[in-house]
Amino acid sequence: MRILVTNDDGIYAEGIYKLASALEKLGEIWVVAPDRQRSATGHAITMHDPLRAEKVNFFDKSFSAWSINGTPTDCVKLAIEALMDKKPDIVFSGINKGPNLGTDVLYSGTVSAAIEAAILGVPAVAVSLADHENVSYDYAADFCASIVDKVLNNWLPPDTLLNINIPNCPREKLNGVKATTLGVRKYKNAFVERIDPRGQVYYWLGGEIIDHNNEEGTDIHSVQNNYISITPIHFDLTKFDLIEKLNDWNIELA
Amino acid sequence: MRILVTNDDGIYAEGIYKLASALEKLGEIWVVAPDRQRSATGHAITMHDPLRAEKVNFFDKSFSAWSINGTPTDCVKLAIEALMDKKPDIVFSGINKGPNLGTDVLYSGTVSAAIEAAILGVPAVAVSLADHENVSYDYAADFCASIVDKVLNNWLPPDTLLNINIPNCPREKLNGVKATTLGVRKYKNAFVERIDPRGQVYYWLGGEIIDHNNEEGTDIHSVQNNYISITPIHFDLTKFDLIEKLNDWNIELA
Repeated sequence: MRILVTNDDGIYAEGIYKLASALEKLGEIWVVAPDRQRSATGHAITMHDPLRAEKVNFFDKSFSAWSINGTPTDCVKLAIEALMDKKPDIVFSGINKGPNLGTDVLYSGTVSAAIEAAILGVPAVAVSLADHENVSYDYAADFCASIVDKVLNNWLPPDTLLNINIPNCPREKLNGVKATTLGVRKYKNAFVERIDPRGQVYYWLGGEIIDHNNEEGTDIHSVQNNYISITPIHFDLTKFDLIEKLNDWNIELA
Repeated sequence: MRILVTNDDGIYAEGIYKLASALEKLGEIWVVAPDRQRSATGHAITMHDPLRAEKVNFFDKSFSAWSINGTPTDCVKLAIEALMDKKPDIVFSGINKGPNLGTDVLYSGTVSAAIEAAILGVPAVAVSLADHENVSYDYAADFCASIVDKVLNNWLPPDTLLNINIPNCPREKLNGVKATTLGVRKYKNAFVERIDPRGQVYYWLGGEIIDHNNEEGTDIHSVQNNYISITPIHFDLTKFDLIEKLNDWNIELA
């Protein structure tokens, strides 16, 4: 089996090292990841600049490892379409430092990398550790290794991938695994205004989380209650049930 | 009425000028757009650098216009949450130079800006001219102005926006307007490999379009047949019909 591992925290982040190391026993590992922190890049691709792929040593491992001056989506595209001589059997993206829950998956480089793999016809899993501090990736990495067979032996529709969020707590505090829907994550006070030494205004994206609709069954609710959340997500954004109604709007040529 | 206009081709692109000018008769125009070409940025947001908003003159118009050193998503977020004293009634993103059809909407800065507006609770429309050469934005801009009332008077669900692609042909060659689904757009030969003057390999994202599933009813089919395509798209990526099946996989804690 051949497993492609990527992330959006950069190739030298702890999360991708722990993930790739846990998957090593299952097959041949390829690591193709951004040369630096690329979180919040969404599904950006690099069209206006050339991409470089530098073969690198990956810590103490002998994996095929490539550092790319692009986004997570670029990494998956370049790995599958240029660097690898045959397609991987599965793609893992992560382990992200911090959750990717609810509406936030739209901004996530971690999730976008997995979406790109699914677009290219490879089963894909995005994995995030739902915390920013005192993170411990070991259990999350083992969990990823434990589900590979299930992902490959069950039928994952071709337009679908899995988005997994794992609470950052010891194994014995976890209550189980839940299949979930995406919740709604909103922020207030989104921007912090500052003045630079030259008197010019600038803004930092900030924002406190306000979680809505976190009823049982959502990813946000599950993680808050110490369940591992697995959300099946797809990339067909068509809002099918509005098409008929749109025809009733009688929009005509101007 | 207050209309926010943005794009991903940059604030000095012809498409946004034509769009904002056509909408001027309907209300107060705000232009908040990237300081340069930002296409293919997907739903990227700027978290690791400060954002600057520079008040600029917008050609011969007296609109409130701001040039932002960020992505289209940043522009919408910053406009609505920091620059504007009250929310716009509608957001238009475009007119993009080139189509945003099928799976490609995931990469599109134009569409992502409209998604961000919808997330922030504002009705939103992304508009693209489906050609890269000999583009003429005038009719497309007039069409946008003609649908504002319909968008505001009909019910657009809060998680939904409209993605419009307009064929680049004279008005008399257009066959009508269709409500469509997203088609599937794939590429072959995705990367072009080159060698730099120092002997190092680099890659350009290239790729020839291979369109699949372009049956009637898709956006791709409609534009190819000289219909304006209007696709309702939403941003809840949950694949609902897989949740029950996922439970049957019996994934347990490792």
